[in-house]
Amino acid sequence: MFEFQVEAASGAARTGTLTLPHGTVETPAFMPVGTQGTVRALSPADLKAVGATMVLANTYHLHVRPGEDVVARLGGLHRFMAWDRPLLTDSGGFQVFSLAGFRRVDDDGVEFQSHVDGGRRTLTPERATEIQWTLGADIAMAFDHVAPGAADLATSRDALERTLRWLERCARRHQALSDGRTGGRTDGPASTDRPSALPPIRQTLWPILQGGTHRALREEGLQRILEMGSWTGLAVGGLSVGEPKAKMYEVLERLEPRLPGPLPRYLMGVGFPEDLVAAVERGVDLFDCVAPTRNGRNGSAFTPQGQLNIRNAAFRTDEGPLDPACDCETCTTYSRGYLRHLFVADELLGLRLLSLHNVRYLIRLAEQMRAAIRKGDGALPAWADDWRRRYSQPGIA
Amino acid sequence: MFEFQVEAASGAARTGTLTLPHGTVETPAFMPVGTQGTVRALSPADLKAVGATMVLANTYHLHVRPGEDVVARLGGLHRFMAWDRPLLTDSGGFQVFSLAGFRRVDDDGVEFQSHVDGGRRTLTPERATEIQWTLGADIAMAFDHVAPGAADLATSRDALERTLRWLERCARRHQALSDGRTGGRTDGPASTDRPSALPPIRQTLWPILQGGTHRALREEGLQRILEMGSWTGLAVGGLSVGEPKAKMYEVLERLEPRLPGPLPRYLMGVGFPEDLVAAVERGVDLFDCVAPTRNGRNGSAFTPQGQLNIRNAAFRTDEGPLDPACDCETCTTYSRGYLRHLFVADELLGLRLLSLHNVRYLIRLAEQMRAAIRKGDGALPAWADDWRRRYSQPGIA
Repeated sequence: MFEFQVEAASGAARTGTLTLPHGTVETPAFMPVGTQGTVRALSPADLKAVGATMVLANTYHLHVRPGEDVVARLGGLHRFMAWDRPLLTDSGGFQVFSLAGFRRVDDDGVEFQSHVDGGRRTLTPERATEIQWTLGADIAMAFDHVAPGAADLATSRDALERTLRWLERCARRHQALSDGRTGGRTDGPASTDRPSALPPIRQTLWPILQGGTHRALREEGLQRILEMGSWTGLAVGGLSVGEPKAKMYEVLERLEPRLPGPLPRYLMGVGFPEDLVAAVERGVDLFDCVAPTRNGRNGSAFTPQGQLNIRNAAFRTDEGPLDPACDCETCTTYSRGYLRHLFVADELLGLRLLSLHNVRYLIRLAEQMRAAIRKGDGALPAWADDWRRRYSQPGIA
Repeated sequence: MFEFQVEAASGAARTGTLTLPHGTVETPAFMPVGTQGTVRALSPADLKAVGATMVLANTYHLHVRPGEDVVARLGGLHRFMAWDRPLLTDSGGFQVFSLAGFRRVDDDGVEFQSHVDGGRRTLTPERATEIQWTLGADIAMAFDHVAPGAADLATSRDALERTLRWLERCARRHQALSDGRTGGRTDGPASTDRPSALPPIRQTLWPILQGGTHRALREEGLQRILEMGSWTGLAVGGLSVGEPKAKMYEVLERLEPRLPGPLPRYLMGVGFPEDLVAAVERGVDLFDCVAPTRNGRNGSAFTPQGQLNIRNAAFRTDEGPLDPACDCETCTTYSRGYLRHLFVADELLGLRLLSLHNVRYLIRLAEQMRAAIRKGDGALPAWADDWRRRYSQPGIA
């Protein structure tokens, strides 16, 4: 369990199979984001139809609503959201530092204000680990301190150091939970209400590397994380948070030679199609991003020729599919003219159909890169060059 | 084509098969409403999964947006909304008299204000017929003057007389279109842009009986409609528009012995579960209503024990299905606790899942009544009594 097998490589890029309690994930892979325990506008059946193998859910959101105890009472996160394939929960760090009414951070943890009820709450490394344990995803993430993309060296150093101290506490807590040495919280009464009928929760914990765009910090952070324990995967955080795209690609490129080959590499919060391609070329295996669903709800669709907005009057009587190259239900069933009508008329089905297509687009993109990597002999660079040439074409596809 | 075969009867209730260009409809049947060319929050695949055989679309809505010419350019209504089973379009009469900024009615037609752009538009019997012909549903409805449910005799008489005069004009226009004697509008340039690749549109026109709650008017109206021509079906309009339910049931009960047995009977805009049961007992074959989808989007679900609102705090940790008796995706996949979470968290998936269940509920209700009628020998009254006893139980199911 929690094994990762690299299968083929092309330069820094590689394909692999990640084995988790709820199934296997072929990498490179894109994870749709189910913020509140649902990938917005899509059902689990939709996600399977477009080939999703793993979904991310947000610990912060599920903690504030409905609360991890409710999720546990309803059978754990997999049963709750009716997703029987692998799940990953983030740690809540990113949301606490970006979304929530932010209050105070110290070495113990973060005090913040819930965006739902305004109530004061505290997240510590231990609590974040316990909440994720209660949710029961296949992969939990360490609680991290995320600094803005443009943070200076001192700020990034501070966030990195805190994230490393917190990682030790997360790992200790996660180990204790895995060993069954404790059943619940440390800052509340011991939890006794986990239904005994549930099978043992099996979960691994992944560390998050911070360090901003500062190369030396990233390398030091990586070194210290690897010295801290034997991990089953590694996440790169603190990118795609406002820094220029070129800077993100550079950080990845410099970091890659130092990353241990056997560990799956997860680039958090990325991304757009061009980011997926660039990051796979730089050795990344796993991605998550709200872009396909958020853009889809805004009427923006990914196509091989770039993004198009379906509200465009040019599509009014367009009988063609949204993306002629795509095999999803949206593209094989409906005309652009009908999809435009759904958006202009504010119909819910439009939100769903464009979200479905965009998720399928990123999953197909990963599939295409896997195929190119497996071909070997420069097939990926050639594929990527061709892909970029077409994607950057102006026009409405 | 456009044949109706009565197969079994129990008192006034009967089962039958309606044969239409795009397939057959087993009656009694409930038609989900696709107001703007989409049944809100549901896809055609969803509708097939819950057993829908026929869908209604609103002529008024499609006329003001995107316009029937756009629908025709996109292959006609079936292709436009990707629904390859039977379709019925209403005439726009109901919407013009209720929804739109109403302006003026005279014998020629109705002048109204579009709810989309505020523009002045005119619908005449001929235009309503032409628009529906262009849309291309299997069944078109005659343009009618709908009076409020509490209208006095003079008002109801006036609406009935106008509806009868308009019916003659609709029928004449529909016959001309069917005969291919004209290609398009009478009040504008002749339409030449209908793609020649389209197969001949095959459509029948059904009359609408008005007359409010006035028995003599209903009987006279029916007589005059039947004398006017040889119809393939008959709609009862002007009910469920504000009058007491008991009054509606009484009108149906008195009318039924005079309705020709061989014609399918369509009760427009009905209804709620209790109305379906009462109307089937009074000989009605076809129904349409926005209630299942509108209520679904409000979190209200039909169950055998009556309606429940999924937002109720009692469902917070309820692991059971929304409706344990139901076989739909919602009820076989998700817990009430999860569905409640989706509504409390304003997630789009909730709107879809409750809409899906409610449509399935009404379609199952029709299936159950068909089965009871086929059993004969008082099975339907026994089934209906039992159903009503359980449905009127108080509580949250």
